[in-house]
Amino acid sequence: MRQPVRLVRMHPSDNVAVVATRGGLAAGQAVDDGLLLREAVPQGHKVALRRIEAGEAVRRYDVPIGYALATIEPGAWVHEGLMRMPDARALEDLPVATQLREAPPLGGQEFLGYRNPDGSFGTRNLFAITTTVQCVAGVVAQAAERIRRELLPRFPHVDGVVAIDHAYGCGVAIDAPDAQVPIRTLRNLARNPNFGGEVMVVSLGCEKLQPERLLPPGSIALRDERQARDEQAHDGLHLVRLQDPAHGGFSGMLDAIVAAAEPHLRRLDARRREAAALSGLVVGVQCGGSDALSGVTANPALGHAVDMLVRAGATVLFSEVTEVRDGVALLTARARDAEVARRLVAELDWYDAYLRRGGADRSANTTPGNKAGGLSNIVEKAMGSIVKSGTLPIDFVLGPGEKLAPGQRGLGFAATPASDFVCGTLQAASGMNVHVFTTGRGTPYGLAAVPVIKVSTRSELAEQWPDLIDVDAGRIARAERSIAEVGEELFACIVDVASGRRRPWAERWNLHNALTLFNPAPIT
Amino acid sequence: MRQPVRLVRMHPSDNVAVVATRGGLAAGQAVDDGLLLREAVPQGHKVALRRIEAGEAVRRYDVPIGYALATIEPGAWVHEGLMRMPDARALEDLPVATQLREAPPLGGQEFLGYRNPDGSFGTRNLFAITTTVQCVAGVVAQAAERIRRELLPRFPHVDGVVAIDHAYGCGVAIDAPDAQVPIRTLRNLARNPNFGGEVMVVSLGCEKLQPERLLPPGSIALRDERQARDEQAHDGLHLVRLQDPAHGGFSGMLDAIVAAAEPHLRRLDARRREAAALSGLVVGVQCGGSDALSGVTANPALGHAVDMLVRAGATVLFSEVTEVRDGVALLTARARDAEVARRLVAELDWYDAYLRRGGADRSANTTPGNKAGGLSNIVEKAMGSIVKSGTLPIDFVLGPGEKLAPGQRGLGFAATPASDFVCGTLQAASGMNVHVFTTGRGTPYGLAAVPVIKVSTRSELAEQWPDLIDVDAGRIARAERSIAEVGEELFACIVDVASGRRRPWAERWNLHNALTLFNPAPIT
Repeated sequence: MRQPVRLVRMHPSDNVAVVATRGGLAAGQAVDDGLLLREAVPQGHKVALRRIEAGEAVRRYDVPIGYALATIEPGAWVHEGLMRMPDARALEDLPVATQLREAPPLGGQEFLGYRNPDGSFGTRNLFAITTTVQCVAGVVAQAAERIRRELLPRFPHVDGVVAIDHAYGCGVAIDAPDAQVPIRTLRNLARNPNFGGEVMVVSLGCEKLQPERLLPPGSIALRDERQARDEQAHDGLHLVRLQDPAHGGFSGMLDAIVAAAEPHLRRLDARRREAAALSGLVVGVQCGGSDALSGVTANPALGHAVDMLVRAGATVLFSEVTEVRDGVALLTARARDAEVARRLVAELDWYDAYLRRGGADRSANTTPGNKAGGLSNIVEKAMGSIVKSGTLPIDFVLGPGEKLAPGQRGLGFAATPASDFVCGTLQAASGMNVHVFTTGRGTPYGLAAVPVIKVSTRSELAEQWPDLIDVDAGRIARAERSIAEVGEELFACIVDVASGRRRPWAERWNLHNALTLFNPAPIT
Repeated sequence: MRQPVRLVRMHPSDNVAVVATRGGLAAGQAVDDGLLLREAVPQGHKVALRRIEAGEAVRRYDVPIGYALATIEPGAWVHEGLMRMPDARALEDLPVATQLREAPPLGGQEFLGYRNPDGSFGTRNLFAITTTVQCVAGVVAQAAERIRRELLPRFPHVDGVVAIDHAYGCGVAIDAPDAQVPIRTLRNLARNPNFGGEVMVVSLGCEKLQPERLLPPGSIALRDERQARDEQAHDGLHLVRLQDPAHGGFSGMLDAIVAAAEPHLRRLDARRREAAALSGLVVGVQCGGSDALSGVTANPALGHAVDMLVRAGATVLFSEVTEVRDGVALLTARARDAEVARRLVAELDWYDAYLRRGGADRSANTTPGNKAGGLSNIVEKAMGSIVKSGTLPIDFVLGPGEKLAPGQRGLGFAATPASDFVCGTLQAASGMNVHVFTTGRGTPYGLAAVPVIKVSTRSELAEQWPDLIDVDAGRIARAERSIAEVGEELFACIVDVASGRRRPWAERWNLHNALTLFNPAPIT
């Protein structure tokens, strides 16, 4: 076993380093280069490696994460209170496509997935019930439970029933400019590859988000359940309107939904996994409950896995606008071309304006847990967050809730809020079929629609939560594994989970959070 | 049986009337006053009673609901396409306290409720688990299920377990000016009278909405579950933090929540209903899936019941800002004093600005179902909506999610969006313990925390949904009952439901929708 690392410096020009030691380091302790700590410094927090003058930049990841408010002595604990946060980088005069690192393809990789009619692949074989409006959620919840209990035992190859319920669809300003975001999110969620192309929609009848608006004519032809009942085979879309007089009351509604589910389940049950190229994978990456080790262990390892995935032909989505905002120049430099850079900047600019309208800015992102974990501000957090996107060129940009277009492949920036559930929901709408989530403080995050692999930044968390953390990247800080080794392990884990050979903890516990729409428009 | 009404005119000066007949009326048909219909007119839609010149006001409820775009002939179907909507009433030069109708007290009424330590009364005896952040929702859902299965059979006087989950608490701009709305809503939801003063909070640990911020020191002293375990009796607050190393992983978290629940359940189980004055009732009224009969049948009957409740000493909350905006002058005239009028106008003004920021206005309120039901625009809808507030003076105004202050009694305007679930959530936060919901198109709305009585505007809906509609106000349009008679029936129903003698349909089916916070601030 290698010698445990006590301080982690990210770049030779950094004037601070982060304490990696469990429990932190004590005052007076000599660290790697003979530096003496002036005070106790908790794990994840920063130590001044040399004297930093008042007004001088505090540098980590080779960028200024703040400016010293007064002189900081060598060995001092460098925290939020000692520095001023830099202003946000202006969205002009950015480097474009100046850092396009090409890497050799990684051949010979495949996984076992469910082939869908549209050419995408599912990593799970789930039956989804889409809803137009929250009004129907109580009925659909009970119908889904009946389907699980009464029908699912007869269809053993179906992995589960997912109700796509949400707080949208009525009582909202549906014609406001930003209403397109929640509407397209719902539309695209129904088409997630893990739902096998089967779409069942439950509508109330009088809501603003009418089924024809949710799934516009042309994308999928709508038919109601009476028509469908008469058909032996059809293309997989059912509509049940609860206000339809044919159903009668509550019991009749439940019966109608359960009856409409059966042909979908039958078709899904007939499917089997087949070997497929990794181009069938769409991996969404996210972090939540981050700490200062996120950018040292879990996110760099995930970045390594992302590079491998992209080299192997998979698509990877990274997100979280407020967590990349301060690194915009790093991203435009990696933009494949000027149009990709322009779209990326447009999304960040839109989000700046959205926050400003509500009296906030990107600095609203950091949490008490981030700060307890050693992250002084959003600049430092962003640097650690971006690293999970790996090092390769950015091939495309998606707006919040936009679906991957045919031919969109490689590494994409899906512009979403950083809020865990909103980001996960929007990545699922974009077409994600495997989710990787890194965490420092720890969160029992899960999604019903997509398997979630949870990666800890610290071994302490992996030990505390042995039945929630799937991969421990904390071994990097303990020098037991290299970043590349954990990255390779994570790559293998992603392929195994996608193939159904491994079920991550959240899936085994059936532990999941509600889908959460991003609605930047007003409600009424 | 009286003669069925075919056309309903709300005021002698109205130049339109609404078709009450099931299935509508045919072209050529002669109606009550010898008028011949020029075309077929569906139920709920308007007929011109005389010639209306271009530019002249179309009057219903004695107010202009629009201005004719061209001449409208007598007997014509008057719909949205034939008129221009009036501008919103300016929020200046409003009549204040000019219409203060006093009505005699209604003595001798009582109900059976659960007395709470703070002097409020519960109409149900529920155990609530409050959550600081969405991250914990998946864990809490499974813990609640275990509590229901393993513990509840031993505590037969406890009516159920309610998880107060939501999409707030992290990933949000928690210091933005409008963030006070979701935060105080969550704080006050935990103190709803139906939860008996027992508060159990599940926190993750690293979230922005820390328990101390959710329930600030001074309101209730926080204690964690280890302290609480050592105490035999305490004042009812538990805190479980999932990141607490003491719990270990997922299984340990579930065990901790289940163990912490038991003393709460024991105390709740010892309570019994007792006779109480109606001052213990806080009735929230709302409408959803409205049609043109809402303002003719269900809402006037509910208004009658509201007058009776207030006369009997109960508190009633009416809401839905965009559905009163066009009737602001009617409300300020009923404001008890200038301060109540000022607060009411301030809430409407704030909402105007909120909608404007998102590129919308009050006209975004109406739905396809409203229009199919005959409501041409928000002006007409508002007139029918306001009538459910009865006729008595408005005693107080609450901002969204504000809790009733001690001594606040009588009729109050709780300023909430009209979105059904958001309105219900905010009324529950304000302290509602019975909910009355009128509907024309029909919605299977329900809440887990508060019993919901559903009133149909049309008998057709009551017949179609016999197992969802509790009171049919459609009998008013069929002249089988008067407004006062249905109002009295509804009053009696509210007292019965509050006393636990009657369980409304949604409660019997355990049919409920998720609580939905109003977050006018941005997410990050």
